[in-house]
Amino acid sequence: MNAPAVQDLYPADVAHCFGCGRDNPHGHRIKTHWRDGVGVARFTPAPYHLSLPGFVYGGLVASLIDCHAIGTAAAERAEALGIPFEPGRMPRYVTGTLTVRFVAPTPIGHELELVARVREAGERKSVVDVTVTAAGRVTATGEVVAVRLPESMRTA
Amino acid sequence: MNAPAVQDLYPADVAHCFGCGRDNPHGHRIKTHWRDGVGVARFTPAPYHLSLPGFVYGGLVASLIDCHAIGTAAAERAEALGIPFEPGRMPRYVTGTLTVRFVAPTPIGHELELVARVREAGERKSVVDVTVTAAGRVTATGEVVAVRLPESMRTA
Repeated sequence: MNAPAVQDLYPADVAHCFGCGRDNPHGHRIKTHWRDGVGVARFTPAPYHLSLPGFVYGGLVASLIDCHAIGTAAAERAEALGIPFEPGRMPRYVTGTLTVRFVAPTPIGHELELVARVREAGERKSVVDVTVTAAGRVTATGEVVAVRLPESMRTA
Repeated sequence: MNAPAVQDLYPADVAHCFGCGRDNPHGHRIKTHWRDGVGVARFTPAPYHLSLPGFVYGGLVASLIDCHAIGTAAAERAEALGIPFEPGRMPRYVTGTLTVRFVAPTPIGHELELVARVREAGERKSVVDVTVTAAGRVTATGEVVAVRLPESMRTA
């Protein structure tokens, strides 16, 4: 995982996301690593990221799934289209639909591993499946419909 | 809206949620107000809760929908079962499935209004529909399957 994270290759005008933007000092700075057709991210929740005592906040799990799926959609398209993995070149996606199934409580105090795979990819949107594993057990699964960033959302 | 928020009536051992717990000083402290069969919450994102410049982070929108739906499920059940709206008496739900549709970008710099309605309610779970409105426009809709808190998740 010495290659730069997908999010570190986003264009500078769209690198402020609270979940994954390198230019948001307040945010989670989730990092997606793309290798062999799979996106992998690791994240250790803070002690205060609780739902109930002992368990990780579901809104954080949803946020991690969301940003990691978006990063994975971007990496898959870059690879498919022959776009180099270089700063500023990564295509940018936004979330159309986010679905999270909480299949077991996520215990706090562990590094979470997120694995994402693109199930369908088209010119305008991709569908990405994500699993979240904590302490060796899948605790949540997600599906994200990722939509190519409309130019109308680029304000810079 | 002078009645206490639903989350302020949760039992003390389950009041630490990052999204809505009164006992989480780091969290969002989302407050659900129950009136006339509808849950209403208002929340103003911080300036750093960005997705792209100018727009609210989708993970925050998902988090707000999640906690507000859970609070609304609890209030609906309390009312239906004749449980008094008093400290410590509110039933506690957790999220089974969370689905969010981002129907338009949510502009930052506005107070968001979330309106939640219970579509189905049973002994063990409820299904809740949520709309998120910003600057007079619905920007996201959500569906949450809320599950009555299993006693196994109560660690205190």
